[in-house]
Amino acid sequence: MNLDAIKNGILAGKNRPLAQAISLVESHDERAAALLAELYPQTGHARILGITGSPGAGKSTLVAAMARHYRAQGKRIGIIAVDPTSPFTGGAILGDRIRMADLYTDPHIFIRSMATRGFLGGLAKATNDAVDILDAAGFDVVLVETVGVGQDEVEVVRTVQTNLVVLVPGMGDDIQAIKAGIMEIGDVFVVNKADRPGADKTVTEITMMMSLVEEHGDYVPPIVKTVASKSQGIAELDEAVVKHYDYLAASGELDRRNRDRVRIRIETQLKERFMERLIGVTIGREEYEQLLDDVLRKKTNPYEAAEGVLGRVKF
Amino acid sequence: MNLDAIKNGILAGKNRPLAQAISLVESHDERAAALLAELYPQTGHARILGITGSPGAGKSTLVAAMARHYRAQGKRIGIIAVDPTSPFTGGAILGDRIRMADLYTDPHIFIRSMATRGFLGGLAKATNDAVDILDAAGFDVVLVETVGVGQDEVEVVRTVQTNLVVLVPGMGDDIQAIKAGIMEIGDVFVVNKADRPGADKTVTEITMMMSLVEEHGDYVPPIVKTVASKSQGIAELDEAVVKHYDYLAASGELDRRNRDRVRIRIETQLKERFMERLIGVTIGREEYEQLLDDVLRKKTNPYEAAEGVLGRVKF
Repeated sequence: MNLDAIKNGILAGKNRPLAQAISLVESHDERAAALLAELYPQTGHARILGITGSPGAGKSTLVAAMARHYRAQGKRIGIIAVDPTSPFTGGAILGDRIRMADLYTDPHIFIRSMATRGFLGGLAKATNDAVDILDAAGFDVVLVETVGVGQDEVEVVRTVQTNLVVLVPGMGDDIQAIKAGIMEIGDVFVVNKADRPGADKTVTEITMMMSLVEEHGDYVPPIVKTVASKSQGIAELDEAVVKHYDYLAASGELDRRNRDRVRIRIETQLKERFMERLIGVTIGREEYEQLLDDVLRKKTNPYEAAEGVLGRVKF
Repeated sequence: MNLDAIKNGILAGKNRPLAQAISLVESHDERAAALLAELYPQTGHARILGITGSPGAGKSTLVAAMARHYRAQGKRIGIIAVDPTSPFTGGAILGDRIRMADLYTDPHIFIRSMATRGFLGGLAKATNDAVDILDAAGFDVVLVETVGVGQDEVEVVRTVQTNLVVLVPGMGDDIQAIKAGIMEIGDVFVVNKADRPGADKTVTEITMMMSLVEEHGDYVPPIVKTVASKSQGIAELDEAVVKHYDYLAASGELDRRNRDRVRIRIETQLKERFMERLIGVTIGREEYEQLLDDVLRKKTNPYEAAEGVLGRVKF
């Protein structure tokens, strides 16, 4: 399938070319940049939400409940799962997939899991690109589910508009430690499985932890209790998300986050294309391998070696 | 403290300058590269082991048991924890730290946790630099503990010599999914807490999962049962690690991994220094911000913008 066909298919609202486009970015296909460049003018309309939390917090069930909520409003929903434990990924448990069958068969819902493993690298880039593609395709809401550990994921979270941090009552001390790490990235906190004992205690704990985080500015992240499996609390959650968006827009923070998105995209391109030219143009592949040998044999070190190569470039 | 003092202190086997050096790399201090360049000739002697597994698998307890085992052989041990849930990190639970008090007070053991959160980026780079510093400082064994989720961590794992994947009996389906993701990175599998019911079942599961992973070549990763809290199975684990090293050396795989370490270090330097020069020399900071504005206003797109900047560079 050629790029034009993919692009036109995406802009016509078809799901199959969407999947092909995301495969292109995931497989580092060189045509991906051309496609993204063409789609770029259509981006900027989707609401992009991150859903972050530990395995077992019920993120996928929450994502499913939110998707159904937005569908009832007539919206088109994109779901991107960046979590090896998500039911939306290949590691899915069959029962979970069956519970979500309505989502899989709805033509106005597009579900995609991103490979979180493998040595190709660039998970954050591929995820951001996938978000852009769904945005350009006219999806009203894009839900990005991530496990929230790892720096690549921080980069994903950094470019969403509103990040929901999902916690559950009664998780152990290990989880407390994770919580401490993700407090600062939460725009809205969700205590899911709130029909379990200890939900109010968890709300209190989050409030306390939040008081330890330095400044919040004018915005204090709300805490919403949900029982995603019963679709309870989803309307309240949506309300909190809308309020956060209003805050983003009014405070100028939305502009800042959008600017960050653009900055990350440009700099990712710069780094990638630079390396392609540097090794192959500035220094031939064979010569580069020879340089690696020299470093391995301690004739030089990685820092001098890098400086030597860069010294040949005219900036 | 000046760089020479730090360098000489490190080479003299002192721990305080070590901590200072790692802080330099962690804080992206520009003097870090000069220090690493000077230390580089002394690297290449440490055995570098990765310990990867989910929170709750007992990684830290295993690391502690291994550290005690190697100490009894008179070796110096470096421990780097890249896991927000590790007792070695700030999120430590007091009881765990007390149980590890002997490690903290042993002058021949150096423990450092790397910040896994925050938006500075470069966790893998900082961790690799810290490993190099400990290597140059003459530590015989460097144990790198990571939670094994996230691509930054994959990069860490990729540059260790032997990676131990730690699993425990009877963890839920969520964990099964994680397992599927980390099978391919294990050089040695550890079933920790093997006195729990289901240990043999877990061994069988690992064997089955391994049979699904494509080629192993001549080396089949062994599975070792341990009860780290009672120091059981640690000698057997050490044996497996030694055997893996022998395989690495005999097969040429050690050379390949060392070459990869060097390649990653050079390319990280190249990317970092390139960006410093590109924005500031090739394109002024103000002009760059203007370019961001143009992309935000859809006058251009991130891909054309990057190409435009790169077009001014003479490779």
